[in-house]
Amino acid sequence: MTEVVDRASSPASPGSTTAAADGAKVAVEPRVDVAALGEQLLGRWADIRLHARDLAGREVVQKVEGLTHTEHRSRVFGQLKYLVDNNAVHRAFPSRLGGSDDHGGNIAGFEELVTADPSLQIKAGVQWGLFGSAVMHLGTREHHDKWLPGIMSLEIPGCFAMTETGHGSDVASIATTATYDEETQEFVIDTPFRAAWKDYIGNAANDGLAAVVFAQLITRKVNHGVHAFYVDLRDPATGDFLPGIGGEDDGIKGGLNGIDNGRLHFTNVRIPRTNLLNRYGDVAVDGTYSSTIESPGRRFFTMLGTLVQGRVSLDGAAVAASKVALQSAIHYAAERRQFNATSPTEEEVLLDYQRHQRRLFTRLATTYAASFAHEQLLQKFDDVFSGAHDTDADRQDLETLAAALKPLSTWHALDTLQECREACGGAGFLIENRFASLRADLDVYVTFEGDNTVLLQLVAKRLLADYAKEFRGANFGVLARYVVDQAAGVALHRTGLRQVAQFVADSGSVQKSALALRDEEGQRTLLTDRVQSMVAEVGAALKGAGKLPQHQAAALFNQHQNELIEAAQAHAELLQWEAFTEALAKVDDAGTKEVLTRLRDLFGLSLIEKHLSWYLMNGRLSMQRGRTVGTYINRLLVKIRPHALDLVDAFGYGAEHLRAAIATGAEATRQDEARTYFRQQRASGSAPADEKTLLAIKAGKSR
Amino acid sequence: MTEVVDRASSPASPGSTTAAADGAKVAVEPRVDVAALGEQLLGRWADIRLHARDLAGREVVQKVEGLTHTEHRSRVFGQLKYLVDNNAVHRAFPSRLGGSDDHGGNIAGFEELVTADPSLQIKAGVQWGLFGSAVMHLGTREHHDKWLPGIMSLEIPGCFAMTETGHGSDVASIATTATYDEETQEFVIDTPFRAAWKDYIGNAANDGLAAVVFAQLITRKVNHGVHAFYVDLRDPATGDFLPGIGGEDDGIKGGLNGIDNGRLHFTNVRIPRTNLLNRYGDVAVDGTYSSTIESPGRRFFTMLGTLVQGRVSLDGAAVAASKVALQSAIHYAAERRQFNATSPTEEEVLLDYQRHQRRLFTRLATTYAASFAHEQLLQKFDDVFSGAHDTDADRQDLETLAAALKPLSTWHALDTLQECREACGGAGFLIENRFASLRADLDVYVTFEGDNTVLLQLVAKRLLADYAKEFRGANFGVLARYVVDQAAGVALHRTGLRQVAQFVADSGSVQKSALALRDEEGQRTLLTDRVQSMVAEVGAALKGAGKLPQHQAAALFNQHQNELIEAAQAHAELLQWEAFTEALAKVDDAGTKEVLTRLRDLFGLSLIEKHLSWYLMNGRLSMQRGRTVGTYINRLLVKIRPHALDLVDAFGYGAEHLRAAIATGAEATRQDEARTYFRQQRASGSAPADEKTLLAIKAGKSR
Repeated sequence: MTEVVDRASSPASPGSTTAAADGAKVAVEPRVDVAALGEQLLGRWADIRLHARDLAGREVVQKVEGLTHTEHRSRVFGQLKYLVDNNAVHRAFPSRLGGSDDHGGNIAGFEELVTADPSLQIKAGVQWGLFGSAVMHLGTREHHDKWLPGIMSLEIPGCFAMTETGHGSDVASIATTATYDEETQEFVIDTPFRAAWKDYIGNAANDGLAAVVFAQLITRKVNHGVHAFYVDLRDPATGDFLPGIGGEDDGIKGGLNGIDNGRLHFTNVRIPRTNLLNRYGDVAVDGTYSSTIESPGRRFFTMLGTLVQGRVSLDGAAVAASKVALQSAIHYAAERRQFNATSPTEEEVLLDYQRHQRRLFTRLATTYAASFAHEQLLQKFDDVFSGAHDTDADRQDLETLAAALKPLSTWHALDTLQECREACGGAGFLIENRFASLRADLDVYVTFEGDNTVLLQLVAKRLLADYAKEFRGANFGVLARYVVDQAAGVALHRTGLRQVAQFVADSGSVQKSALALRDEEGQRTLLTDRVQSMVAEVGAALKGAGKLPQHQAAALFNQHQNELIEAAQAHAELLQWEAFTEALAKVDDAGTKEVLTRLRDLFGLSLIEKHLSWYLMNGRLSMQRGRTVGTYINRLLVKIRPHALDLVDAFGYGAEHLRAAIATGAEATRQDEARTYFRQQRASGSAPADEKTLLAIKAGKSR
Repeated sequence: MTEVVDRASSPASPGSTTAAADGAKVAVEPRVDVAALGEQLLGRWADIRLHARDLAGREVVQKVEGLTHTEHRSRVFGQLKYLVDNNAVHRAFPSRLGGSDDHGGNIAGFEELVTADPSLQIKAGVQWGLFGSAVMHLGTREHHDKWLPGIMSLEIPGCFAMTETGHGSDVASIATTATYDEETQEFVIDTPFRAAWKDYIGNAANDGLAAVVFAQLITRKVNHGVHAFYVDLRDPATGDFLPGIGGEDDGIKGGLNGIDNGRLHFTNVRIPRTNLLNRYGDVAVDGTYSSTIESPGRRFFTMLGTLVQGRVSLDGAAVAASKVALQSAIHYAAERRQFNATSPTEEEVLLDYQRHQRRLFTRLATTYAASFAHEQLLQKFDDVFSGAHDTDADRQDLETLAAALKPLSTWHALDTLQECREACGGAGFLIENRFASLRADLDVYVTFEGDNTVLLQLVAKRLLADYAKEFRGANFGVLARYVVDQAAGVALHRTGLRQVAQFVADSGSVQKSALALRDEEGQRTLLTDRVQSMVAEVGAALKGAGKLPQHQAAALFNQHQNELIEAAQAHAELLQWEAFTEALAKVDDAGTKEVLTRLRDLFGLSLIEKHLSWYLMNGRLSMQRGRTVGTYINRLLVKIRPHALDLVDAFGYGAEHLRAAIATGAEATRQDEARTYFRQQRASGSAPADEKTLLAIKAGKSR
């Protein structure tokens, strides 16, 4: 990196003014190759993304604000048909049924729909990503032939009836039963009590003609755990529930009101034996249960594992929404002027204010990191689902990666949408600028398809398990104590997703790394070390928990629940940072690389600043070094400022995706009109005198 | 404080289990006197609050979800009339016109309306708090007699037309002009360009018949700055704009859709000279300008100062909304069970999970702090507006206090509403549980009536000014360097609001305070020291800025903008902590005091944890001490757990205010039903065997 001084910011910019006043050396500012960077961001499924964006840019699939929830629902249902007609939603289905067996591409296209209307996206996700996907992945060929064509064509709108009022995250404890009756060769689906009603089920309130119902499979008086059953819900002719089935409308929600979520309950509803989606477990005519997966636990997780695509796609959709928001907010901030700090007649551009840069650029950096991390996740997903790499270990890695990234990106999206809305003031609150609308719709992304807090605990358990494996045989307690008590820690970090076998063996090397906060290796060491040490610390604290009675072990875990979640979060942040850094290595253009490096550094340093207390109290950074982090960040903001518009333009969304009145250049037009008015007034001498100025003159004369 | 062990939590609680397992000493757990604490929280205007809550509990004034924005608008307009009929909104107006000159009581009652419908609250605020208030405070007796009766009765719905599309926070730069025409003795109101349209104006889109329009007063070719003018907008008979006036509807917003915000513009609209609200500035028939306040700057701030009640009331409304959310979410968390960690048959109550406690109790503590701080603010407001203490200094202190507290409480409300919604999972997203609805409506509270970020900068400027005053004559540079470079700082902190002339003169005393993190004095020292040192540090950095050319001074300020805002935030946090501590001193009941002390400690320690990196890198806490903060917090959570329901019940809101399906006890009923079902099934032997259990038995036999 060369040491440079900004040239792109306006003369009024406080940052550039100082630089000029300092008489600092002037170098040529690097240029971002926006087109090439845009290509890289589009990733492996660029064509599909562009095709999906073209679709999402059409008014017919876009959200109309202010509809009642019933109007919105019927609009979205109509839009689903449009997606079918435009071949937008069948990529993951078998070629022989009209799909293209393209799992990664399917998700890539799906993600982009969020820019049209998140309700449309999620309703499509319910129909094809959950309902259709369950039939495809949990059912067998007979099921595919029988139901997939109708599901794909939307002839059979359906539900994914897993969650119950009483159990969301803890799917193993759902209480709906499917009891096999040998005499009639039927399963009897039953809801034993109110808490076992299916709840929050998309398509349940109105449109669903059928459902994949998850229930405890009981045959020959043995409960074989949760299995999936295909159940007809409504009479297609009348839309009425079939006998034994009832339900309720979940009503209006905080967002996503284009989807008819509802509740379902079953009173001894009989379905044919063959409606069990029997890929992983089957019941013979005589009631004998069989499964290719002997362990009930593993069988359960295998069945649930097919649901990972929901998490993968929410991760991508959250990134897309963050991009749209930042593209609008940063364009507005580059035009909007407020307060004339530097001159009596010229007001400052918002984006030249340090705080405004902090608010928007740190989130821009995180969005880039999340975007590159998502691309890796999607590739991993495609590897597994295409069969290219689908060992058990691959599947577990995919699950862990999705469980790590989805929480961060969905929370980030809400945070970014809110910060953008606030950064645009009252204008940000108007629906015409879409921040508030997107935020309301994306709100539930942080708790559905795996509650973020629960997902992070899954990640933590995996980290602990990997950690225990690495140290099998090692003197665990001694090692961990060493890590905890010393200023510098020794730990081996294996994520299961990659080998980060990094040793920070002595405090000397930590000090060295601390001297290079801006260096890639310095950042990597600090971020990796933190994950290693946190996992080691909790691991040590939980040592021997397995030998305690259940309630004591649970109590011990609970005392460290917060640390566990924080360790998982640290791990996920490291994954994002590594993805950003790997993407950086693939950039050819020197100018782009330089600017993107600044952004990656901003991301890395923001993480270090966020967790600075940890680095300080564990001796990883000295007090003095700690105090430089904020200063470095402030300098990076100034260096990113000239490229902010390029960096958001590389996201590649058009006006048809942003659809924000403030991102149309209207603000610049208004500013220009106002400034021209005042300039002409001053030039013509028609401007009224200012009382303040007159008083000052008077005061001068009287002195 | 006595050392005690929880008794209230259920046997299944991980926390209590450990305590029992430790065989720790068992003391009598203190009891909270909920009624007395409730009284204290209601504060000085308890009667008015209770009366307002009674009103807010009636269906007729409550929000109906799912209305279109036009339906919602007309419902709210009708509700305003109901408020008039119920004497709910006139307390601040003059007694001689039917009010009661009760400024504090007026705000207290107003704040409680947020529980009915924030749109109703803010629409009432527009009509009586802004429009009516401007006529009252900026106008003179003639204006009062002429317009207040119609404003009070809602015969004249009106607008407060200050903000323009081009200028929000920077009111001094608005561009609408009011030019005096001596010949006709009229003011000519004119909008020179698009950016000068009035924007986001409540009542402007539909209902407003008149407006107080803020414009640059120009007479005899001199601009005397922003003044307020009473302007008729619409023909009451037809609802059409009067000649020369036009506008637009702002359309749907992220929330508060019961209010018809809109835009207004004026093309040479003539109004009588006497429509100038002339309390602080007047124009004679011949065009001579006069004012009792000579300085144009001070005059401007005096006029704007009458608007402080908006900030005061938003602070209170934000606290009320936070209370409602926590009361619902904590009740639900105390009933809801998920995952059976401690036993094979019993699931954990959510509120026994450490992370859940962290999420909700830290916000509960902050809500108490914000509530007590608000009561102080409201008293200060009443002192000033009643005339009891209304010197210039009092008014400035009031402004600064409001500017400090409103940002924290409104951001806190959004944060709390969101955390509560997430803590309730999918149920939290349903509008029937209200978190999402309240959050959407309160969103704009963080940017209107003073953008939070801008307000904090006002506070920072005040802190810097006070700091400079204290040290006039002292060797500023040397002192500041000392503060920055030493492990322990010396600084004198004068808030303007109170004298916190506290010296932390040597590092010995800082170390001592660090040893007492749980002590009131330890917390006070740490929090105060941070404010002092941050202000001193920025003060030193900005020293001499006044002598630099404007653009250089602005650049210097901008380089420290982030620090300035953080210093202001630290100051506001200290004010909240002090208010909580002062309230504690007034608690008589020993049990209540003990529990509330835990909550205050949780608040104090959470602040210290949030800013731990600062304490560490400035040598205020040692590495080792820093590591204990999180542990202390975790212990406090366990100690607060048995009292969580008491602490939210003391807020005193009834089911008619919560109106959340999940806070009705329905969850407990469902849980009981489910557990009874399983218990009976086990007792009767009709429960199916579990495949896992059978496999385990089989494995045991085969061994």
